[in-house]
Amino acid sequence: MSASRQIHLVRRPNGVPVPSDFAVVEVDTPDAGEGEVQVQNVLMSVDPYMRPRLTADQPLDVPMIGGGIGRVVQSLNPRFKEGDLVRHGAGMQELFTNDGKGMQVLTPDPGLSLTVYMHALGGTGITAYGGLLETGALKDGEQVFVSTAGGAVGSVVAQIAKIKGCYVVGSTGTDDKAAWLKDEVGIDAVINYKTQPLAEALKEATPKGIDVYFENVGGGHLDAAMPRMNVRGRIPVCGMISTYNGGGDGVRNLFNLIYGRVRMEGFVASDFPHLQAAFVSDMTGWLKDGRVKYQETILDGFERAPEGLIGLFSGLNNGKMLIRVTS
Amino acid sequence: MSASRQIHLVRRPNGVPVPSDFAVVEVDTPDAGEGEVQVQNVLMSVDPYMRPRLTADQPLDVPMIGGGIGRVVQSLNPRFKEGDLVRHGAGMQELFTNDGKGMQVLTPDPGLSLTVYMHALGGTGITAYGGLLETGALKDGEQVFVSTAGGAVGSVVAQIAKIKGCYVVGSTGTDDKAAWLKDEVGIDAVINYKTQPLAEALKEATPKGIDVYFENVGGGHLDAAMPRMNVRGRIPVCGMISTYNGGGDGVRNLFNLIYGRVRMEGFVASDFPHLQAAFVSDMTGWLKDGRVKYQETILDGFERAPEGLIGLFSGLNNGKMLIRVTS
Repeated sequence: MSASRQIHLVRRPNGVPVPSDFAVVEVDTPDAGEGEVQVQNVLMSVDPYMRPRLTADQPLDVPMIGGGIGRVVQSLNPRFKEGDLVRHGAGMQELFTNDGKGMQVLTPDPGLSLTVYMHALGGTGITAYGGLLETGALKDGEQVFVSTAGGAVGSVVAQIAKIKGCYVVGSTGTDDKAAWLKDEVGIDAVINYKTQPLAEALKEATPKGIDVYFENVGGGHLDAAMPRMNVRGRIPVCGMISTYNGGGDGVRNLFNLIYGRVRMEGFVASDFPHLQAAFVSDMTGWLKDGRVKYQETILDGFERAPEGLIGLFSGLNNGKMLIRVTS
Repeated sequence: MSASRQIHLVRRPNGVPVPSDFAVVEVDTPDAGEGEVQVQNVLMSVDPYMRPRLTADQPLDVPMIGGGIGRVVQSLNPRFKEGDLVRHGAGMQELFTNDGKGMQVLTPDPGLSLTVYMHALGGTGITAYGGLLETGALKDGEQVFVSTAGGAVGSVVAQIAKIKGCYVVGSTGTDDKAAWLKDEVGIDAVINYKTQPLAEALKEATPKGIDVYFENVGGGHLDAAMPRMNVRGRIPVCGMISTYNGGGDGVRNLFNLIYGRVRMEGFVASDFPHLQAAFVSDMTGWLKDGRVKYQETILDGFERAPEGLIGLFSGLNNGKMLIRVTS
């Protein structure tokens, strides 16, 4: 038995979540029994997808959902040995004991930071890769618009599109992120949607229209993109962060789907197991040769997970938001 | 040279078109020259798709766009002889002379009314057939929701879905149309969206969710359908009549696309030339054996075309709206 902590949802948020919607709860974690492992969390992920689930299927008063990387501290399960790093979906627990189902041993490339396995080589990376190349059916050299291009998924999408020879326009909400996208990542045009009139700026930035709009935002972003979509354009729908907390603008320009024969299609990271091997191979290469760059915002301390999750909706993060539990 | 009339757009509508946006203009139509035909219009079609084009690419002070059936009255073109019936896209002209390009001789089935070639066996029919079966990828026995199911396209969609063994729910705006759909067409549930709360009624009418939503309306209809969509559902987008005149509600529930992996895709009638032979064969059979029923609203008199077009937006029509120029 060891002292541990968990993050619980204790009240369903009304709009943007606030700290008091969550609680840090002290618990005792049992030792590993026969067939079990005990895992110490090392890194936890907070992601926009969590917001709708706070309203829907996240139970109250149990550990918050979420993925992470942990280190095995006790093992009575032959698949794991003490010291192994594992990917897990055990949620926001400092320490947890389970039967190891759904966990995979992670052998990180020594040339890469462990943190990349929580973004570019993790769920956000396969989301970007599968959503752009399969759902979006990207062809080399096309015209691409990526919303929240400074975010964890968007920045990977923008860079894969550049690698595929595309013309890439990104939107972002801060001048810092805009500068990083333009100067470091090298995309073709950046729009700060908080300081520029989005529809006009997007029209100017896309003289050849848009073949693929990678949708992370919804609302006004979608309305701005719609009239710019080329015939047979595709809109892979990864997220609609502008709508998750209620409010925001309704979408009025969807009729542009019709004459454009535009296809919008939703997807989630788990849709692409058949792409996993190609993804890991491609992305490891791109990260090591510097063709995919990334930003991270790492909050130190297990108890800061709610702060990190809430911060996603105010743009607190540059790139992927992570919680470091132990180093 | 023969006296004729044309319908011109003389002012771009602001919202719902009004009669003074149009003019009936008297003209002289030249006789057919070498290689030409002169055609007397018999039936003209007015359709919702025309509304956005009044704002976009319909030129002022020339004949309105539109399709119809005419009779050849002069021919110096070997493809046509006097008395032939032809399908044409020459627009709203009582009489016209051209080189015959884009016109096809029509040989109607003697067991069917000529008018069906303007709807169930014409553009609205192939729109319903291709949109439901190809864009919507309908599978036998699925759960189907059709908006404006009392309309020219919607009523054919609903009946094809019934022929394919599906459970079919339709929305319509009058009790007359609702009664026809329920009692004559035999669909499973009808919602009068003007007298019933749409989202609640749709939830009740679709206990097994929706696999295919055939979209003719947009706005509140789309918002009501979104939470009901089953995983891997499809939304073929034929029209969004609620948005064509401006105003209406913005769409707020599109985030349901994501976890549902729902696909929305626009299409137009001309996308399905490869289906034409199968369509004509299937639909002729279905009409003759009474499995596809239809309603028509026929306005007599060339000059009533603007009234017919405007009436589409107030539900003046039961089923397909046609203008009879001559009999």
